[in-house]
Amino acid sequence: MSSNDRVLVERSGPHATITMNRPERRNALSEGFMDELTAAFEEVAASDALGIVLAANGPVFSAGHDFADLAGADHAATRRTLLTCARLMRTVQSAPQVVLARVHGLATAAGCQLVATCDLAVAGYSAGFAAPGGKGGWFCHTPMVAVSRNVGRKRAVEMALTGDVIDAGTAAEWGLVNRAVADAELEGAARDLLDRATRGSPRSKALGKQALYAQLDRAESDAMAYAVEVMAAAAQTPEAQEGMAAFLEKRTPKWPA
Amino acid sequence: MSSNDRVLVERSGPHATITMNRPERRNALSEGFMDELTAAFEEVAASDALGIVLAANGPVFSAGHDFADLAGADHAATRRTLLTCARLMRTVQSAPQVVLARVHGLATAAGCQLVATCDLAVAGYSAGFAAPGGKGGWFCHTPMVAVSRNVGRKRAVEMALTGDVIDAGTAAEWGLVNRAVADAELEGAARDLLDRATRGSPRSKALGKQALYAQLDRAESDAMAYAVEVMAAAAQTPEAQEGMAAFLEKRTPKWPA
Amino acid sequence: MSSNDRVLVERSGPHATITMNRPERRNALSEGFMDELTAAFEEVAASDALGIVLAANGPVFSAGHDFADLAGADHAATRRTLLTCARLMRTVQSAPQVVLARVHGLATAAGCQLVATCDLAVAGYSAGFAAPGGKGGWFCHTPMVAVSRNVGRKRAVEMALTGDVIDAGTAAEWGLVNRAVADAELEGAARDLLDRATRGSPRSKALGKQALYAQLDRAESDAMAYAVEVMAAAAQTPEAQEGMAAFLEKRTPKWPA
Repeated sequence: MSSNDRVLVERSGPHATITMNRPERRNALSEGFMDELTAAFEEVAASDALGIVLAANGPVFSAGHDFADLAGADHAATRRTLLTCARLMRTVQSAPQVVLARVHGLATAAGCQLVATCDLAVAGYSAGFAAPGGKGGWFCHTPMVAVSRNVGRKRAVEMALTGDVIDAGTAAEWGLVNRAVADAELEGAARDLLDRATRGSPRSKALGKQALYAQLDRAESDAMAYAVEVMAAAAQTPEAQEGMAAFLEKRTPKWPA
Repeated sequence: MSSNDRVLVERSGPHATITMNRPERRNALSEGFMDELTAAFEEVAASDALGIVLAANGPVFSAGHDFADLAGADHAATRRTLLTCARLMRTVQSAPQVVLARVHGLATAAGCQLVATCDLAVAGYSAGFAAPGGKGGWFCHTPMVAVSRNVGRKRAVEMALTGDVIDAGTAAEWGLVNRAVADAELEGAARDLLDRATRGSPRSKALGKQALYAQLDRAESDAMAYAVEVMAAAAQTPEAQEGMAAFLEKRTPKWPA
Repeated sequence: MSSNDRVLVERSGPHATITMNRPERRNALSEGFMDELTAAFEEVAASDALGIVLAANGPVFSAGHDFADLAGADHAATRRTLLTCARLMRTVQSAPQVVLARVHGLATAAGCQLVATCDLAVAGYSAGFAAPGGKGGWFCHTPMVAVSRNVGRKRAVEMALTGDVIDAGTAAEWGLVNRAVADAELEGAARDLLDRATRGSPRSKALGKQALYAQLDRAESDAMAYAVEVMAAAAQTPEAQEGMAAFLEKRTPKWPA
């Protein structure tokens, strides 16, 4: 798989790892860097990888947008940066693969948003999460869209207004990440969760992920009506039929290509 | 009350218990069985019972849909099964009584959805909860509608994608059930919570339950406008007036028939 | 600042404290009292205060509406009381300042709603929270709109149907309040959180608070589209530019008046 110096794409077994490799800039999300990350996600999304780990090199997971790029930028340029960021997030969420953030160090602002946007997240105890715009002059409006869909309201408001860092344990307790572990166990814990999350038919899971996010935004009765239609149609796919047959015949399923 | 061999309906004091009694099929939700459960809920809903316990016989609470019925079924038949399931869930949720799931053993797929749909749930430590379609070929689309409205997003995604079982303690921590207790204390803990949840005027509570679910799906300002109108109208009912009068006169209220 | 006997408004440093001072009526929210509270919030909202503490005198934080006023009231009068209450809540939520509830003693019904509506809340261990209408004859419809947007669904249903009091520790665990502390530490803990939540540009934060609540009610993709436009526009404000410049120049920002 293609990599460049700033975005490393590696394949190891069934999973791909996309590593942010701009440690000297604290993996700040400049427009060009976000475009490269989006391209890496698009490339892996089109591959036969089952899972994607989003990781980072250096002491900081990601510091979010780069003020060096944005200070003095006009409205059109700033808006373009934010739309580029929104496109990265959408690409992560619409990948057919399971995307897991493996977080060490600080994930702040759009860096925190990236973690909140991934399907799953495992954090080392060195990790911390913040929406620091709240204690500055430019509120973390877009990061909070993702963060507030992961944690309860009073906690989202606290993160947004204080801008302070919550530690990995608190993030796990609040539901911003799935697990908090010692940094020495981070890679293993992330792989274990991703392995468990990528069993089964990839095609069924890809549909499942999209339909899950789609129904979450609907009123309950609409969500149920939508889920019934998706699930009824999905039952006719070869993978659903193979899964049921294998279960009834007590054998390992063989997913159709 | 009427029972058949597969669905037991018992009345004990103010509460009715509906027991799934298909242990040899792990209380799998075949279409016929769901119709019988729906009929039992409709019957109890029309009675003067204050609370309804949903329980199960056998080592498994409910394994969800029966693959023996669904493997090879065409689209129309599968869709009909899912609509039958959705009707059962709607019947549980629209019963004027408080419905409490008393869970021991595994509750998976539509069985987990049943627990998530009940107003309240108490689980014994033997209980476990899963949406196993995620590790097979047919994703748990409809179960996740209910599950994802009880637990946080990262946790819902984890359950959906891994398909793994979470234990009763985790389910209580995540908010999928209200309590986890030793199995020996399950019946008592369930009755205690149901007793406390069925005090007050049954008519006021029936309206309250429906209005609560109705407002949850609205934007906050719409929800408030709706709740103001419901509450203003409800104040004029005999039960509201009796409740206020009894409070002010420091006496036990006597709810109008 | 103006106070009257029932609503005390004090300024201490950057923050204002609005104290409910009707202890002999358990700070019950009569229509007149709510109008005075709303006026106090409007007054402080228009001032240069950075944060607002909502506190209470006496052993009870607030018992909610006063049944002495409402028993026997006709539909129009009851509806007017509930609309007055909704206006108070809207005023709290739309204040440009950070509003923090500092809770000791019981906060029930509309008193619990007040806590749920404030941006942040810190509770002493003497505090308790309940929606008691569920065990009476008049369900807590409007309080549950705010409560159910702070805690998970099964927990909201439990509070609504049982009407029972949850203690401060449970409220913190469920996310109804941000912190639970010993009563002796309540004032300090509340001030610490409010100090941290009021750093940064007040104008940026005021916009951030409103936009955060506004996006919460939207589907995720709509919320993101909205947040992108707000954030792009906000980047052009003097406070955003000053914040970025100060960060890059490693100096303390000086917020424009």
